[in-house]
Formats: sequence, structure tokens, C-alpha cells
Amino acid sequence: MQLTRAADYAVRVMIHLAGLPPGARVNRSELSAIAECPTQFLCKVLQNLTRAGLVISHRGNTGGFELEEMHRTASVLEVVEAVEGPIRLNVCLTSEHACAGQSWCPARGVWAAAQGALVEVLGGATISCLAQQPATARQPVIVGIDEARRS
Amino acid sequence: MQLTRAADYAVRVMIHLAGLPPGARVNRSELSAIAECPTQFLCKVLQNLTRAGLVISHRGNTGGFELEEMHRTASVLEVVEAVEGPIRLNVCLTSEHACAGQSWCPARGVWAAAQGALVEVLGGATISCLAQQPATARQPVIVGIDEARRS
Repeated sequence: MQLTRAADYAVRVMIHLAGLPPGARVNRSELSAIAECPTQFLCKVLQNLTRAGLVISHRGNTGGFELEEMHRTASVLEVVEAVEGPIRLNVCLTSEHACAGQSWCPARGVWAAAQGALVEVLGGATISCLAQQPATARQPVIVGIDEARRS
Repeated sequence: MQLTRAADYAVRVMIHLAGLPPGARVNRSELSAIAECPTQFLCKVLQNLTRAGLVISHRGNTGGFELEEMHRTASVLEVVEAVEGPIRLNVCLTSEHACAGQSWCPARGVWAAAQGALVEVLGGATISCLAQQPATARQPVIVGIDEARRS
């Protein structure tokens, strides 16, 4: 029960784009470096974000990816679901008829409650708020990283 | 981001065992039918539950699987983690040094909060409480199932 790598990269990309001035475009290679994601893999992630209308893809020399202005207030949930599809914590929650036991299964309510709690947190966190965290707090502390690597 | 089938089957098995009188043993074939899980696959699930000390495996003609009495109060979280390992919603939450950006990444707090919410729900639901749901509420409504199949 873990977030896919694709969804993790998608959220990184979205936070980066939301921290830029409106209309700013970033090319694929730069996004790949920022998200620390292999370019080929990021292409699929960007395709999903574009299809969901969260980012706009511009071609040509001045091309790149731009945050769709209307979606500056997108939540982490929207980004995750653009990549993974709707969050369904267990197969029995995928549809009304996914499990024959759903009218009496004692576990279904627990899965539904857990899914609800998860969705509430992810739905309440907007990409733009995350991008607005103080820049100093978002800079990697190089000494700290080196220390972590040595330890 | 979905529960593994193994963890789902493990919870079904545990709820069934918790609904039986103390000391009752159920063989593998019966558990396989109850959990609606292929026997081979259930073997691995039962191995995990046995290793975690949640069930006791008895060999021989009168053998079978029995709920470890001390673990009658186990939570859904304990059962899921016995099969899947500790719940870590994103790779960055697996250890102190899993991600170099953890001191400044704006998304990490969201993943941690979502994981916390999930763990709280699953940890608060005990297998014995689920097993004690009124028997009538737990009986499959056969007519309903048939209708669902026809639709």
C-alpha cells in the first residue's frame, strides 16, 4: 500500500511549476533534474498531467511545460489521481458490484473509513500552498545531507 | 496505492477465526473457501500470520489454524503489517535517510499526515470487534448477489 513513483514525481513537478511566475515554462530535461526522475519515465508522468489538464505542453524552441492557471489550486489528491486513477484502497471499493460480500462484510467499512481519511488529507493539501512554503525552508541543507551520507 | 490481495485475505481469515470459540481450529481448505482465496496463495498469507504470532498452526489429523488467544484484540493494522510490512505511504517515509530532500521537501509533511490518518483508522479497528458484528448483518443476501450478477 504505497504511492506509485509516478505519482510522487508528478507532485514534485506540480509543486515546482506552482512556485514559478504565471506563464513560466520549464522544459522536460529541467523538470527531470528537479524531480530527480529519469527523463523517459517523466515523459509518461507529464503525459498524464497534460491529459488531466493540470499542465499545458508547448512545443518548439520556446516550448516546455506550464502550469494550467486554473489548476494552480489543484490538490495533491487531484495530482495523484491524474496519475494513478481514483484512489480505491481495496478492490471492494472500486464499484458497487466489485465484491459479492459488500452488504455484510465487516471489513469493508474499515477500508472505506481508511480511504476517506487518506482522501481527506490529500484533498486538503493544495499544490500552491506547498509551493509557497518559505524558500529557505525548501533549500536542501547540503551539510546535513553530507552528514547523513557519512552516517 | 492499494491494499495487497494478500493483506485483504489475511484480514478475512482473522475475522473468521476471531468469530469462533477460543481454541477452535480451521483447516487450510476451509479457510481458503471462506476467504475466497486460492489455497496456494493462502498458504503464504497463513505463513505470514503464523510468523507474526497472530495465528497458531497445528499439524496432523486434528490440525488447522487457530487464533492466538493473546492476539484476539489485534487491530486491522497489525494484520495488514504482518503481511505487507510496516505501512509507509511513500518511499521518503521508509527511513530517516530515505530521501535527501526530507528536511525541506514540502510534500513530505502531506505524505506523513496521510499515512498517519490511514494508520489511525486501521489501528483503531480491532479484528474481534469486526467479528462480533451481528451474525445477521454478516450473512450474504443471496437474492441480492444474484441480482448483482444479473445486472
